[in-house]
Amino acid sequence: MGRIIVEVMPKPEILDPQGKAIVGVLPHQGIMQFGDVRQGKRFELTVDGDVTDEALEAAKKAAETVLSNPIIEDVVGVYAEEQ
Amino acid sequence: MGRIIVEVMPKPEILDPQGKAIVGVLPHQGIMQFGDVRQGKRFELTVDGDVTDEALEAAKKAAETVLSNPIIEDVVGVYAEEQ
Repeated sequence: MGRIIVEVMPKPEILDPQGKAIVGVLPHQGIMQFGDVRQGKRFELTVDGDVTDEALEAAKKAAETVLSNPIIEDVVGVYAEEQ
Repeated sequence: MGRIIVEVMPKPEILDPQGKAIVGVLPHQGIMQFGDVRQGKRFELTVDGDVTDEALEAAKKAAETVLSNPIIEDVVGVYAEEQ
């Protein structure tokens, strides 16, 4: 059984209110190191057998069509998870 | 300027309705390869200088307190982004 990871982030020019909220909360927890936070999505896609080139191509297609909105998001990673 | 990535996923025993919805939609796009999909979160934390051990420790603390709910989610990765 293999697994493919897909990473999606809001485009840099898109406002990320969740990230901004987190930046505001961290100092209340004593965490001062981070000037900016962006929140995106991480998907784990499970394939029955090994991760083939064909499965990776299918994952890239899924990433661009179902898992992200290309108007406001970038697919920043599609790769087989290391076993 | 450095960046730390934090990855958070729902625990395996927690139902993931978003992932289930995606599994149901993919075949309509001609994508048949994936038997299971789980959706989690990916955060980018920006630090002013380089990523120090102290910044990584702060990111781990943020991951466990603000960025995830330990009851239902696992922090599956905290690492410096490669430049």
